[in-house]
Amino acid sequence: MAYPQNVFSNTTFPSPSFISRRREVVYANTLLYQLNVLKTTGRYDAFKLQWHPSYNDKPDVPPVPNHLFWDSDVAKWIEGACYFLQWKKNDEIEAAIKELVEMIRAAQQPDGYLNIHFTAVEPDKRFSNLRDLHELYNAGHLIEGALAHSDHYHNDLFLEPILKYVDLLSQTFGPGPDQKHGYPGHPEIELALLRLYEKTGNPKHLALATYFIEERGNPKGQEGRHYYDVEAEARGERENERPIYMPKPRSYWYQQAHEPIINQQTIEGHSVRAMYLLTACADLLRIEDNKNEKLRTAVERLWSNMVDKKMYLTGGIGAQKQWEGFGIDYFLPSGTDEGGCYAETCAGIGVMMLAERMLQLDLNGKYADIMELCFYNAVMTGMSASGKQFTYVNQLSSTDTDLSKRAEWFTCACCPPNVTRLLGYIGGYLWTFLNDKADSLQINVHLYSSAQLSIPIGDKVVELEQKSNWPWEGRIEFQFRNASEVASTIKLRIPSWAEDWQIVPSLPDRKLERGYLTLPPEWLKSSPSFVLEMPLKPRFVSPHPYTNQDVIALARGPLIYCLEDVDNSWVTDHFKSLVLDPESPIGETKVSADEMGEPYVALTVETKAPVLDVGMELIPHVALEAIKQEASGVVGNLHFIPYALRDNRGGKGHMRVGIRRKR
Amino acid sequence: MAYPQNVFSNTTFPSPSFISRRREVVYANTLLYQLNVLKTTGRYDAFKLQWHPSYNDKPDVPPVPNHLFWDSDVAKWIEGACYFLQWKKNDEIEAAIKELVEMIRAAQQPDGYLNIHFTAVEPDKRFSNLRDLHELYNAGHLIEGALAHSDHYHNDLFLEPILKYVDLLSQTFGPGPDQKHGYPGHPEIELALLRLYEKTGNPKHLALATYFIEERGNPKGQEGRHYYDVEAEARGERENERPIYMPKPRSYWYQQAHEPIINQQTIEGHSVRAMYLLTACADLLRIEDNKNEKLRTAVERLWSNMVDKKMYLTGGIGAQKQWEGFGIDYFLPSGTDEGGCYAETCAGIGVMMLAERMLQLDLNGKYADIMELCFYNAVMTGMSASGKQFTYVNQLSSTDTDLSKRAEWFTCACCPPNVTRLLGYIGGYLWTFLNDKADSLQINVHLYSSAQLSIPIGDKVVELEQKSNWPWEGRIEFQFRNASEVASTIKLRIPSWAEDWQIVPSLPDRKLERGYLTLPPEWLKSSPSFVLEMPLKPRFVSPHPYTNQDVIALARGPLIYCLEDVDNSWVTDHFKSLVLDPESPIGETKVSADEMGEPYVALTVETKAPVLDVGMELIPHVALEAIKQEASGVVGNLHFIPYALRDNRGGKGHMRVGIRRKR
Repeated sequence: MAYPQNVFSNTTFPSPSFISRRREVVYANTLLYQLNVLKTTGRYDAFKLQWHPSYNDKPDVPPVPNHLFWDSDVAKWIEGACYFLQWKKNDEIEAAIKELVEMIRAAQQPDGYLNIHFTAVEPDKRFSNLRDLHELYNAGHLIEGALAHSDHYHNDLFLEPILKYVDLLSQTFGPGPDQKHGYPGHPEIELALLRLYEKTGNPKHLALATYFIEERGNPKGQEGRHYYDVEAEARGERENERPIYMPKPRSYWYQQAHEPIINQQTIEGHSVRAMYLLTACADLLRIEDNKNEKLRTAVERLWSNMVDKKMYLTGGIGAQKQWEGFGIDYFLPSGTDEGGCYAETCAGIGVMMLAERMLQLDLNGKYADIMELCFYNAVMTGMSASGKQFTYVNQLSSTDTDLSKRAEWFTCACCPPNVTRLLGYIGGYLWTFLNDKADSLQINVHLYSSAQLSIPIGDKVVELEQKSNWPWEGRIEFQFRNASEVASTIKLRIPSWAEDWQIVPSLPDRKLERGYLTLPPEWLKSSPSFVLEMPLKPRFVSPHPYTNQDVIALARGPLIYCLEDVDNSWVTDHFKSLVLDPESPIGETKVSADEMGEPYVALTVETKAPVLDVGMELIPHVALEAIKQEASGVVGNLHFIPYALRDNRGGKGHMRVGIRRKR
Repeated sequence: MAYPQNVFSNTTFPSPSFISRRREVVYANTLLYQLNVLKTTGRYDAFKLQWHPSYNDKPDVPPVPNHLFWDSDVAKWIEGACYFLQWKKNDEIEAAIKELVEMIRAAQQPDGYLNIHFTAVEPDKRFSNLRDLHELYNAGHLIEGALAHSDHYHNDLFLEPILKYVDLLSQTFGPGPDQKHGYPGHPEIELALLRLYEKTGNPKHLALATYFIEERGNPKGQEGRHYYDVEAEARGERENERPIYMPKPRSYWYQQAHEPIINQQTIEGHSVRAMYLLTACADLLRIEDNKNEKLRTAVERLWSNMVDKKMYLTGGIGAQKQWEGFGIDYFLPSGTDEGGCYAETCAGIGVMMLAERMLQLDLNGKYADIMELCFYNAVMTGMSASGKQFTYVNQLSSTDTDLSKRAEWFTCACCPPNVTRLLGYIGGYLWTFLNDKADSLQINVHLYSSAQLSIPIGDKVVELEQKSNWPWEGRIEFQFRNASEVASTIKLRIPSWAEDWQIVPSLPDRKLERGYLTLPPEWLKSSPSFVLEMPLKPRFVSPHPYTNQDVIALARGPLIYCLEDVDNSWVTDHFKSLVLDPESPIGETKVSADEMGEPYVALTVETKAPVLDVGMELIPHVALEAIKQEASGVVGNLHFIPYALRDNRGGKGHMRVGIRRKR
């Protein structure tokens, strides 16, 4: 068992695929594009600790300074760049990393403290507002950046100051009488510390992560009161004073700190925070050999609540803009005009992180299904085909105030470098392998693509290669090359949406175990070349009826489709009044890569495409017969493209995933 | 033209009806019940300005002290009691009014100031927070109480101190350089001052009301800035400090003060405040002979936005609990588990107030339709058959956390006495009459019931009597007794939901003009006895599809029906999974008055009553075929009762208006 950030380099992408093309784009465009943004916005030089004019800016979300995240923007870029550099060298990027690391080293204070804002701007406010300010979040990303740097460069130039900073944090936070009993408002450092612990084996690193996780939400943590209450009082905060993301005083569910994690029944609050926190919980479970029953059931309970009742068709999470997070059960409006839809790109990445960790604890296809759903929809929609435009929010339908358009950057720029680093180590998500025992190897294949996994066993290398035009085609050709003598088992995930599948040569036992098909050692020896095939047929799916979304959406394989005005130029209302008959025939069209750098399958629904017409004469009542669904003369067949590929061809920005279902 | 509070006494209720029975209950039970509550809670004695222990209570909604509304609770009770005393004397009530008025007189400060909290508790904070505290709102209710008192007792014991207080307010607020350019956070005084002006003719009263209306939302009202900003700064309020009802800093749309009223495009914020404000605007329009084009179009625009896009099937308004008010267009969830539903009783009363005023400006049945809808559903559901239990919030479906149950009283007790005073002057809503010209009379009949209107013309009296078992039966018998020689026209409203109607004797011209049928003088002379009959057939109605409420509700005449567990004891999930086929036959049952003090028509839908069953295996997707609507063996026919009569017979509190529509 291992972190995907550590084992991704066992995976290479020798032949083209959706994933490899996205990686090429990031390498060719995104890394340097983002480096340029870091430089022009002031982030690049910020660790020099000089004053930057933007430090005077009024915060967009008081009390959070706009530049508060700059440490993490830089750290995430370094982390992502280091992943990509393991694949291909690049002098310009290497030079930038070298300079950044030098600046970071120089920025460290004598006592180990390392943070831009609380050194250059408000040095007297260190650790005074863990609830709202992202001090420990930044520290977490610095740790992750340093780990990636250390893995790539095999030196400690970045890791050394970080270890010193972590020493300071270990002294500052903990259960001791002179320590602060606090924990970050935005989880991130927990998962970073656990990864650091794996590298260092230093029990202090495990202890600090465990403390942050277990202390969280303690109603009597500091002086018999909630830490955030004591902290707020010390700041002189008034009862009715609070940031806009907290609807009421003490809305600590925003930070998942309303009660201890093990007691939480439903997933609440800011969705990225929730995912980073639960990922760390899952990591802690693994480190503790999955023996913490209360924590395990809590994580499973919160996962189920999220997936069953608070997740969009695309795998996106977070309905509520005000707190960038979860609404009540089944509250999943599709866009601004229905009351929300946030589905932040980073939150989708967080779901993938958590799903991957859960798979390591419990090999169950339900986690891999969601991981794949998120990747191909909620996450991949976050970057343009060019790799130079990004989304933060991913609504399932556009409105005049929120068009389906990407942006070039954000003030709070968490998402773009998060996509970069994800694609840097995406190989770590495709499969997991267990070779703890000297005489056996197990490879669990979660995602399909064209990729090769190489596992050193002793002085030999075991290789598993898959070739596929996934997600466009459902045929995957495998080559298993076992130069060692180790007995090997491969488990192949069969997605829950797959109506049918075939494996060739045939397998005696086709039984699926929790969504995975087992290829036993004997069969593999005789069949090192094998093919998995599942027909990818378009299908209609729907959200749960309790969402009050009486819509249907088109899906094909792991992809969710949408309508865009580029292909349906008659649209004037974001497809809001459009009605779709699920009995309509669906046609497929292969579109070449020229159009948006990726060949894809477009879908056409052959329909008269009726439009809703509502008589308003009896408002607020409408007599049933006044609600008409009439065929429009203008609207012809409907042309769908994958949601991940939206907004790559211009247009007005009208887009919709779920279409009103015809009666 | 006149205020319904002034002309209601022209209407009597000589024979029993839904309305007269409710009035009997209020007279027999509610007035004394509420008087007792006023006494036991401390409200009754509060004008003595002694300290009350509850003044130390932590506010439920900071910074608003729980007792801040006590002035208005007392004033509204006096107002309602005075209306009922015009009908029947009652020594206990009269004695209480006498004592209360003496206390109010004694509570007035030498400069005219008159408020409990800002005299007894925080005398140094007068007029320092118009935005949040209800100082001017209380003043408005004192004015209304004094007007009712003066009309009934024909003395100025109550009015005298109020006029003195209004003088102080006129000095304090206005455009002058030494005056405050402020206006109340909770409108009420505007409509009260306009009614006061009608009585006094004092231009200062008109000027102050006009100032409050027109200055509202001025972005540069005080020192070139918004008044509430200047006021907040003077209080030392911080940028992130705000009451829970304001989601963001400067959410002045909560108070309808985000921009001048004439510029407002959509109805926003706290729904009671919006209704009281627009009622005052309509009154001002009338006083200005409807010549203020900008104000008139603004009021009409806001009315339409409300009725077309922000009103529940019951006539209730306000979807959002946090600010007790309007959500975005078409955001009309039916209960807590769908994201809200407030539909406050007072807001329904406010809609009736506004509708009545609009009818006087523009005789259009669309206003009367909504006035009737609100009365028989959103408002009348607010009081139990016993007259001793009340609702504040009127959801369209219950949940385990918000059962369909009334309460005995509220900390913020605006609703119970508001129902009382409404039923006190309800006669003023039934019809309006115009006898401005000496030689003609026009009576516009808006609502049907059993009632008699008496209009003195010179030394004669013109009488119009209607007899009907409305809203249970659709036959209304009229008697017009015109002892004078004045040429009279009667206009009868034909509800827009009426599929058919007959008038006997027949009328040559059956044409409806904006929802009203004209009975001309000649016809009336020959037909002083006439009958209007419209069949009241059960019908299914639905909210606009953009609400994403794919439900149907049962209606009959002006009444909206609901399901309750008392009649459908199998229910365990608040009818959430129940599915209803609009093709099902509907049966009617007359239920005698014994059961809940009011005979009523129950409806039974003969159906197999299928229940929704959703396969969860592909969550967050659901394959269409996994959503089943299956007949349940347990559920038989469905028994509906009027929403207004819910929660009068015990039960678990499971209730629903809109039932999921069968596919």
